[in-house]
Amino acid sequence: MTNLDSINTLINFFTKLPGVGYKTAQRYAYYIIETDNAHVRAFSDALVMVKEKVKFCVRCGNFTDTDTCVLCTRRSKDSGIICVVKDPRDVIAIEKSGAFNGTYHVLHGVISPLDRKGPNDINLKTLLVRVREEQTEEVIIATNPDVEGEATANYIASLLKPSGIKITRLAQGLSLGSALEYADEMTLGAAINNRNTI
Amino acid sequence: MTNLDSINTLINFFTKLPGVGYKTAQRYAYYIIETDNAHVRAFSDALVMVKEKVKFCVRCGNFTDTDTCVLCTRRSKDSGIICVVKDPRDVIAIEKSGAFNGTYHVLHGVISPLDRKGPNDINLKTLLVRVREEQTEEVIIATNPDVEGEATANYIASLLKPSGIKITRLAQGLSLGSALEYADEMTLGAAINNRNTI
Repeated sequence: MTNLDSINTLINFFTKLPGVGYKTAQRYAYYIIETDNAHVRAFSDALVMVKEKVKFCVRCGNFTDTDTCVLCTRRSKDSGIICVVKDPRDVIAIEKSGAFNGTYHVLHGVISPLDRKGPNDINLKTLLVRVREEQTEEVIIATNPDVEGEATANYIASLLKPSGIKITRLAQGLSLGSALEYADEMTLGAAINNRNTI
Repeated sequence: MTNLDSINTLINFFTKLPGVGYKTAQRYAYYIIETDNAHVRAFSDALVMVKEKVKFCVRCGNFTDTDTCVLCTRRSKDSGIICVVKDPRDVIAIEKSGAFNGTYHVLHGVISPLDRKGPNDINLKTLLVRVREEQTEEVIIATNPDVEGEATANYIASLLKPSGIKITRLAQGLSLGSALEYADEMTLGAAINNRNTI
């Protein structure tokens, strides 16, 4: 093998990206070598910049460039509905659906005993403060419909129950546009149990 | 959508990498945000470093940190066989096979009228000089077995014919470990035409 230290170093950094193997990292590195200097320098700056600028929103915990994130600023007090999600990607996904107009609360993880993550390791305390201080009418717990997501949802629900506010969970059932015969049995079971009157 | 300029800028740079869509770029960007500063800074430096350090080998045209690449230095005069490839990735692939012990010549592209790439747009002139000046016994033309690769191989062969040296092309046939029934008809046709006596 050619001992191109600078290329190998870069390939090595690319392999650290989620889901990137050696071959893909190599493609990325060769793309960088073949791209013009100014673009690569700007890319390099963007990496450092993101680490310098991005912090957590003091209210909802989402990533932001400013103290309070744009969504919290825009939908400040009146919404009354807080949607609790696992991480910032989920905020973007829900925003894209256009079906929610309230504020979010980003946990940055879920309770997971196997990963030694307890209730104190996620952004939960500030949620309880928010529910108390903001005129919250409803908390939608939108963690993933998997074991850890469900456990976390139940835990949060047990904490919020005493406050008497409405606590909801995202509906579970068939994906839109999917075929019944390809749905897994758990999903199909949930779809039957949660059936709606038409 | 949240207007996180620094994140969006970074996502945008990631989407420029080959084969990376918006969702993947977003995953990469969130990985960067969640990774420690020192690592990201080193990654950022590696990007710029590769552009500063990497140049072309004066002899074979491969990427190198030094004037003459490691392979050219190590296998300097005696090999007598030059393997002509489309780009540096091919050198790595052939080196991994361990079946070749000569020097390479990297064209950095192939002749492709549709992309307006003629013989003067690839690293071809230096090959002719090398064949003349080095004691070359054989030139293996290892461009891809596709339309442009074949056309380029034929063109190079026509240039080298007058020198009287041996000119070869990589064998075409079935992949090792593959199943005959899944081979495409072109490959199967080549495998029949190039059949060997056992």
